[in-house]
Amino acid sequence: MTAPTFEQAVNELMRVGALFYERSWVPATSGNFSVRLDDGSIAITVSGRHKGELRAEDLMRVSGDGEVLTAGKKPSAETALHTQLYRRDACIGAVLHHHSRTATLMSKLVGREIVVSDYEVLKAFTHYDTHEARARLPVFANDQDVPRLAAKVDAWLDSEPDPIGYLIEGHGLYTWGETVADARRHVEALEFLLGCELELLRLQRVGR
Amino acid sequence: MTAPTFEQAVNELMRVGALFYERSWVPATSGNFSVRLDDGSIAITVSGRHKGELRAEDLMRVSGDGEVLTAGKKPSAETALHTQLYRRDACIGAVLHHHSRTATLMSKLVGREIVVSDYEVLKAFTHYDTHEARARLPVFANDQDVPRLAAKVDAWLDSEPDPIGYLIEGHGLYTWGETVADARRHVEALEFLLGCELELLRLQRVGR
Amino acid sequence: MTAPTFEQAVNELMRVGALFYERSWVPATSGNFSVRLDDGSIAITVSGRHKGELRAEDLMRVSGDGEVLTAGKKPSAETALHTQLYRRDACIGAVLHHHSRTATLMSKLVGREIVVSDYEVLKAFTHYDTHEARARLPVFANDQDVPRLAAKVDAWLDSEPDPIGYLIEGHGLYTWGETVADARRHVEALEFLLGCELELLRLQRVGR
Amino acid sequence: MTAPTFEQAVNELMRVGALFYERSWVPATSGNFSVRLDDGSIAITVSGRHKGELRAEDLMRVSGDGEVLTAGKKPSAETALHTQLYRRDACIGAVLHHHSRTATLMSKLVGREIVVSDYEVLKAFTHYDTHEARARLPVFANDQDVPRLAAKVDAWLDSEPDPIGYLIEGHGLYTWGETVADARRHVEALEFLLGCELELLRLQRVGR
Repeated sequence: MTAPTFEQAVNELMRVGALFYERSWVPATSGNFSVRLDDGSIAITVSGRHKGELRAEDLMRVSGDGEVLTAGKKPSAETALHTQLYRRDACIGAVLHHHSRTATLMSKLVGREIVVSDYEVLKAFTHYDTHEARARLPVFANDQDVPRLAAKVDAWLDSEPDPIGYLIEGHGLYTWGETVADARRHVEALEFLLGCELELLRLQRVGR
Repeated sequence: MTAPTFEQAVNELMRVGALFYERSWVPATSGNFSVRLDDGSIAITVSGRHKGELRAEDLMRVSGDGEVLTAGKKPSAETALHTQLYRRDACIGAVLHHHSRTATLMSKLVGREIVVSDYEVLKAFTHYDTHEARARLPVFANDQDVPRLAAKVDAWLDSEPDPIGYLIEGHGLYTWGETVADARRHVEALEFLLGCELELLRLQRVGR
Repeated sequence: MTAPTFEQAVNELMRVGALFYERSWVPATSGNFSVRLDDGSIAITVSGRHKGELRAEDLMRVSGDGEVLTAGKKPSAETALHTQLYRRDACIGAVLHHHSRTATLMSKLVGREIVVSDYEVLKAFTHYDTHEARARLPVFANDQDVPRLAAKVDAWLDSEPDPIGYLIEGHGLYTWGETVADARRHVEALEFLLGCELELLRLQRVGR
Repeated sequence: MTAPTFEQAVNELMRVGALFYERSWVPATSGNFSVRLDDGSIAITVSGRHKGELRAEDLMRVSGDGEVLTAGKKPSAETALHTQLYRRDACIGAVLHHHSRTATLMSKLVGREIVVSDYEVLKAFTHYDTHEARARLPVFANDQDVPRLAAKVDAWLDSEPDPIGYLIEGHGLYTWGETVADARRHVEALEFLLGCELELLRLQRVGR
């Protein structure tokens, strides 16, 4: 798998942004996306841009440590949550953070972790080859101090052999993959799983 | 930020109307939109037009006091709710009123005010720089006497330092911004927030 | 208002069909549409065609009494429910029957009538000039004997001064207007109203 | 009805895939589709491809016994669930397996069978000519051992005179038809029916 150029990354993220917006997964200017480029730098969305209508000027480069490489632009406030993933795992080529109603609600309803099992769609993750797998997503408290939040994510990543993503409370979901297509597949799978679990929560709560 | 020409305003509102209609936020002929123009007049939707399929002829000009400047056309019945905002705040460049199921339901369910907190998406409003902000939306009783309703909105605006929008019962949401893009971002953020709160209401009611 | 030609009617119904299908209001081959033409005959959808992808060959002509005027084609099984409306009211130019989940569910949940009030969107009907109007939709038991069903609808129309539409149990909604645009506006308004009422039903049932 | 060529089958399945993806019925790489071709072989989706964006290279041929006829490609892991249907019934020309949230949830909620009645949309199946028909969908436990699962489906098909489809728990729905259009009509009808029943389940549970 060859890492993309900046132009290729822009094209892929424009497309993902439009698809996610259609599904109401990046309302207002929420969400942020990044891709590891062929020169080892990271293409990431500029702070405050609408993810449903990305243009080339809405993406910029940062170094693997999050330093700005595109003069005059300010990267997403959550850049550190992207760069920590690229630093830790050379196989990660893309990180997608979206902000759907389902992910946000589940992050408020399930406590500090959600465990999902018995869905065929779990096989969308290369970690799992059966619906009997148990997928675990931690929920971190939201924090405007992003380095402090990144440190908590780091501690979790240290302890988790096969991380597939995490929720931030009232904020949304982070997931990733080798390519944008892989990361998008993980977003779609997790949205599906969280959507089913939210519906079960509705029905179960009622049953009590 | 330069105020747009009539033609620019028409193009922007056509696009917003189509986007909102796709999301079922302006069913039938509900909703109305306006923009402050470069000559200080207001472009506003003509009464009774379908907001999902606006053409140039579905927009008209009124003065800052709501007087008709486009002969032979009748502006939205709620023009006074738009012009009062432009008169009060020189920074407001666009007002969008939409009519989603979520906004309508919440206006019937929450009493006279809804307070929303602990959502990252609150940062879509320039007033707020943290998810810990408390956003307040008043709910006004619906009234076919629009000047009387506008007077109530005026009284609230007098008392509210950082207004972000308001609901009218069984009727929908008003919000605004410096540009059409800003006002649209506010619509998307409020729809998201009200949608999450509606779902929590479902779950909490059940839990009682 | 001039009645359209067959070609104009086809174009309008193709567009309405595509819009309704996008919203999942005409799943499978459900629903049927008609328009009164300039020669007094009725253009109606051929039986069993997919309403989301209508082509000219999926529409045909019948007389005001429902007699086939396009040789070799079979009109919708529910043609009599269309023609009775055109016979009774010379102002009716279009009849749209759709089959949304919301309309179908409400037809099963509300008993023999639903009354809706306190929604601004009621003004989408020319009968009403205030949100305080009380809109009444009867619910007829479903019946594969269409003439028998049409007779029941006739009896109701005799007694109702300002009919706006009706539900058939487990089957969907009929509404109409002077033009296709008017009838579509009524579909959108009723979908919105029934959708809000379904949500309130969910919340109220829970509260009990 | 003439069976299609490989190229015709590709075009039809690309279109169905895009439609289903728009409705979130094939998230991630879930679902699989097949068509019986003019030479008696089966065109089926390649394992692990995104069903919303199928290209010619994402389809391949297998024999009626599931043997690979397109060198170098791996068919869907569930190919045996497709080929058993073509072997049993010469009238079946297309099999569609989708993976909607509604179908997945219902497969987890209803036990070993769901029976649906009193919906006009039941007439979308040629088996039924009245809303009073009783449609039965069995729910099979999910199983990564596909031949074992296929054997259970075979036993059910032996006992069922008019099968219209079946659910796999936590996995989705299988249905079929003479053509892709027929199979798609059945998917749309079953999605509608299961969606209505899920909503009734919500309301009934609450009422208890």
